[in-house]
Amino acid sequence: MIPLDEARAYVLERVAPLPPNHVSIDPKSIHTALGLVLAEPVTSAENIPAFANTAMDGYAVRADNTANATDDTPVTLKVVGTIAAGDPGNLTVGTGEAARIMTGAPLPDGADAVVMVERTHLIHPDPAGPDATPCDIVAINVSVPVGNHVRGIGEDVSIGDQVLDVGTELNPACLGVLAGIGVYEVIAHRRPRVGVISTGDELVDQPVELKRGQIRDTNRRSLLALLHKNGFDPVDLGIVSDNEADIEHAFRQGATDCDAILSSGGVSMGDYDYVKVVLDRIGEMRWMQIAIKPAKPFAFGLIDETPVFGLPGNPVSSMVSFELLAKPALRAMSGHPATNLGPFITAGIAAADFAHVTDGKTHFVRVAVTRDESGTRDESGTLHATPATGQGSHQLAALAHSHALAPIPNGSHIRQGDPIQLILL
Amino acid sequence: MIPLDEARAYVLERVAPLPPNHVSIDPKSIHTALGLVLAEPVTSAENIPAFANTAMDGYAVRADNTANATDDTPVTLKVVGTIAAGDPGNLTVGTGEAARIMTGAPLPDGADAVVMVERTHLIHPDPAGPDATPCDIVAINVSVPVGNHVRGIGEDVSIGDQVLDVGTELNPACLGVLAGIGVYEVIAHRRPRVGVISTGDELVDQPVELKRGQIRDTNRRSLLALLHKNGFDPVDLGIVSDNEADIEHAFRQGATDCDAILSSGGVSMGDYDYVKVVLDRIGEMRWMQIAIKPAKPFAFGLIDETPVFGLPGNPVSSMVSFELLAKPALRAMSGHPATNLGPFITAGIAAADFAHVTDGKTHFVRVAVTRDESGTRDESGTLHATPATGQGSHQLAALAHSHALAPIPNGSHIRQGDPIQLILL
Repeated sequence: MIPLDEARAYVLERVAPLPPNHVSIDPKSIHTALGLVLAEPVTSAENIPAFANTAMDGYAVRADNTANATDDTPVTLKVVGTIAAGDPGNLTVGTGEAARIMTGAPLPDGADAVVMVERTHLIHPDPAGPDATPCDIVAINVSVPVGNHVRGIGEDVSIGDQVLDVGTELNPACLGVLAGIGVYEVIAHRRPRVGVISTGDELVDQPVELKRGQIRDTNRRSLLALLHKNGFDPVDLGIVSDNEADIEHAFRQGATDCDAILSSGGVSMGDYDYVKVVLDRIGEMRWMQIAIKPAKPFAFGLIDETPVFGLPGNPVSSMVSFELLAKPALRAMSGHPATNLGPFITAGIAAADFAHVTDGKTHFVRVAVTRDESGTRDESGTLHATPATGQGSHQLAALAHSHALAPIPNGSHIRQGDPIQLILL
Repeated sequence: MIPLDEARAYVLERVAPLPPNHVSIDPKSIHTALGLVLAEPVTSAENIPAFANTAMDGYAVRADNTANATDDTPVTLKVVGTIAAGDPGNLTVGTGEAARIMTGAPLPDGADAVVMVERTHLIHPDPAGPDATPCDIVAINVSVPVGNHVRGIGEDVSIGDQVLDVGTELNPACLGVLAGIGVYEVIAHRRPRVGVISTGDELVDQPVELKRGQIRDTNRRSLLALLHKNGFDPVDLGIVSDNEADIEHAFRQGATDCDAILSSGGVSMGDYDYVKVVLDRIGEMRWMQIAIKPAKPFAFGLIDETPVFGLPGNPVSSMVSFELLAKPALRAMSGHPATNLGPFITAGIAAADFAHVTDGKTHFVRVAVTRDESGTRDESGTLHATPATGQGSHQLAALAHSHALAPIPNGSHIRQGDPIQLILL
């Protein structure tokens, strides 16, 4: 048996980021860009804000005109116009003047501060409509400094700023940032297309009654779903029967059509592993026994240049193997930096005693997680982990109801109340 | 100002789960079912395993035939055949006999236990091929109890078991569980189709130079991406100009085509809120000021039966408002139970002092999170939160680089090392 870290390092040394593409960020198909990783940095050709504007509804003024203004001794200014958001604001505020101004509207020439509307009152409002007319007078009840409630040019982003680095994942806020500086296309790594093959004459995938010896194929759907959920592009390669020619055809076709292949089953030490025979012939494979439970058997290799992950056949094992080994590699292929490949450990507290592990393996125990929260302000959000009932590697229902994997290293005695690591699912 | 809890309760009282549909779980389009919430429970019509089978490669035996077997005094049994996974296993193991058996293969009649291959050796292996022939003899080096390495019928799931409850989200493991019991169609709530409208004459969404007063529309892309990322079905309704007829048409069309509408902008107290005028006329709206920062202004209401979320126009505010108010409501519409609507609080530690909050609001501070992990077994996974630079509600770049929102209630003095709540993004 080899340590998990060794197996992961072996895999990560043999995968590389996929080539970069031009990707357009289209609101009609926002999922196309979402989650991709930048292959080139993005530098802004614009300022945000592009012009000084107001953060509040109120009056644009010359700050020195408000000196000593208070509720009791307001200053009165002549209202020379109104500027709405979207207006060019082509007017000038002179001494003794003010302009009504709406949040986001450009600060007019001459003005250098904004008084929020709540600290003003209009003395001659025009009863006919919402626009104040030039004859109105506004009373200002507060003295404001230069720049009050003004957002300066480039305060958020300046021309030439590198707003997003290489390796940044395009999350929803990033897509907003890009739209905000008028960038509607980026250069990002391709999203990995990942084929999923199930192998075995015993597998059934139709609503027909099982014959003795047959089982239903569960792994394909689970793995396809895991791929989609984690931002990869799943490709169903179907079930392949225990026949060397069929297996070879399926893997060669998958290696041509996809960026990577996940297969499940056929990696254990049994006699009937046609998959093993074929992959050893057409690929460069390493067959491993990893010191973890579940998911001890694992294979990795290349068919031509295409990575192939040989996951174990048991349903729980195949999903755990995906989380610990395939997903970090697929993230590397997506362009994520080495520090951001996962699995991501979160801290929790054991809500029960965990079994003592003495078999030389790290156990990834399926746990239900409850949060220490009650809707009050005193909730802490601490995660409390309880082992699921049914830790067999074939007992998928327990995994379906679990929220996390808790890695329990060999020799550990985890007791109720102890700190525990969690890999949230 | 009203408390956040009051605003959320107001919204949640006015939304309901969408009607259930029959949904097929097709590996070619696994995303169709992934993340949906069951409207009816799923009961198994099958056992898993459907037949007693072996958890190990080895020999199927009668346990009492192995009594007193040890390395030094092995028991020898006649090998009557081989059963691979997928074989029906139509042979019988009598007294003094054994059958070679591969992981997952059915336990043959007569046998009641399995000896793993590592505790056996074959005395007359057939040199011609992988199948042991009936004339082989196997030496068994260990005494095993009845049921050893045998997975009994229905050990994971029994006929009649309710394997998935109403309200279960179809995660990847659930899709595997369903395939495992031959269920390829479920009854689940429809995934909400959610339209996104931006309003305002000042908004530009094309690669053209901005005129004075114009700004780029950032919110539509961010909100569409947030919807997709959270498992909802985003519908781009475009930008609507400040014109009552256009606004009315866009919202009425959206209310017809979609299950909910998100609009951003036009909810503050300014004079020029055409959106407010139109929504008050065609819908039943409540305009709120919530004691939070950012995202104080918020509106919610119904056009006919369709929920409309009026999010603030500032980019950060619109995304925070989505997390705190729209997302829980859309999760309720998806069929998630009331206890599972979020936002989900996780525990962390402040990695720096946080500003003292004294304005009567809960501040949702954008924070970068680093994990206390080093790749060693001593890593705890504790999350350390540092406030991002640029907490203005218009400063989206800071949010793009943040990993979580940290709610800081009014009056809080959070100092470095203090426990802190986190809403992971």
